[in-house]
Amino acid sequence: MITSTSNAQVKALSKLIKNARARRQQQVYIVEGIRMFRETPEDRIEKIYASESFVKEHETLLAGKDWEMLSDSVFASVSDTKTPQGVLCLVKMRENRLEDMLQQKNGLWLILENVQDPGNLGTMFRTGEGAGIAGVIMDRSTVDIYNPKTIRSTMGSIFRVPFFITEDLHETIRQLQNAQVSVYAAHLEGSVCYDTPDYTKGTAFLIGNEGNGLTKETAALADSYIRIPMGGQLESLNAAMAAGILMYEANRQRRV
Amino acid sequence: MITSTSNAQVKALSKLIKNARARRQQQVYIVEGIRMFRETPEDRIEKIYASESFVKEHETLLAGKDWEMLSDSVFASVSDTKTPQGVLCLVKMRENRLEDMLQQKNGLWLILENVQDPGNLGTMFRTGEGAGIAGVIMDRSTVDIYNPKTIRSTMGSIFRVPFFITEDLHETIRQLQNAQVSVYAAHLEGSVCYDTPDYTKGTAFLIGNEGNGLTKETAALADSYIRIPMGGQLESLNAAMAAGILMYEANRQRRV
Repeated sequence: MITSTSNAQVKALSKLIKNARARRQQQVYIVEGIRMFRETPEDRIEKIYASESFVKEHETLLAGKDWEMLSDSVFASVSDTKTPQGVLCLVKMRENRLEDMLQQKNGLWLILENVQDPGNLGTMFRTGEGAGIAGVIMDRSTVDIYNPKTIRSTMGSIFRVPFFITEDLHETIRQLQNAQVSVYAAHLEGSVCYDTPDYTKGTAFLIGNEGNGLTKETAALADSYIRIPMGGQLESLNAAMAAGILMYEANRQRRV
Repeated sequence: MITSTSNAQVKALSKLIKNARARRQQQVYIVEGIRMFRETPEDRIEKIYASESFVKEHETLLAGKDWEMLSDSVFASVSDTKTPQGVLCLVKMRENRLEDMLQQKNGLWLILENVQDPGNLGTMFRTGEGAGIAGVIMDRSTVDIYNPKTIRSTMGSIFRVPFFITEDLHETIRQLQNAQVSVYAAHLEGSVCYDTPDYTKGTAFLIGNEGNGLTKETAALADSYIRIPMGGQLESLNAAMAAGILMYEANRQRRV
């Protein structure tokens, strides 16, 4: 059992939880909690770390797996949550290739530019899985999908919704368009009501930053600007909510 | 200028920020930040508290108003946020009477049972304003609408969306039904797809707790159980997201 926070493995874990660059360099990330532990595909888990209390209560869950025990206090010091459930996994990154993702015909896509809130990003994955999207494209300025808060709010969708982080958002948008995907920018100045276009063919929704929306340059690439009508004195909807309403409108059309 | 955290007004403010019962007893609550300060109707503000830095920068905003200055460190100790903007207001509660709210014909309603996440509640208000709802009904077990986190995530909708906190949720549901409002329970076991019913007449969506959904007793009062279809292996959508998708489906039907 590891009982010291200065243990090298413990230090490495802390770094992976806090530091996006360390995650990227090592191509691994951390998922925490019993729910995520159950949802992580087995072949993606490099190692499991469990608190002493967790081992006592759930030893059968760990049978046959590569796990290490931490004292409860060391576990708490590493954990990203206030009330740790006592288990976390070191998981191998596995990203999709855009070319493979684009094989899907008539897919529904989400393209994100500079989304900053981890909860919003996670909720977009979760709702996207429900709405049946083909994948999520994110630019580098979007919050890290491997951020522990993002992962938690995906509720496991991170393992099931294909995604691609692009170094060149504009080029990626053009590639989607070349693959017969119509790109719609969710925009407060959109002249087209969001429920007017036909989303039954290849469709992508472009969603921008929570405070500032899409950059002009990115919005300009869209085939059309769409707008969700808003009553009252509201200036905007929450970004994840807007994405969810759009994805479920496409889902509705595809079911009709 | 108040420079001590042991000042009586400062202590009273801290209590109002942290304690729902104190808010209810005194029938006041706190809104924080420059955005909320601008959005709060003037006749609802009892007093404004501003940090020394805020006063220096924005004194014109305070002209003619009843305000008190706190030193920056005292302000920070009171604030509910990590990076305080330097202004908070003591606001009078003003709740609607259910009978008045029910005067609205063919209204769209949200009825909440034991919703626990302040961000979800705030997002439901915000999205509800956009979708044009007549009001929100909450039971006593739902998180306090006057919680600072809830208020922030309403983005000002708390001042514009009528709401009613009921001591007897079941009785209130019956009152809505007597006023020709059809009550739909959002339920994972619903047999009716959410986009099938006609929501252009009086309509209420019943939304339950994030983890456990609606209680059996409450769900049993609904006129119909509806379900949002979900692909993948998802067990449920986020509660605010589900509410938003339902409210915008009703909004869409009402626009068609």
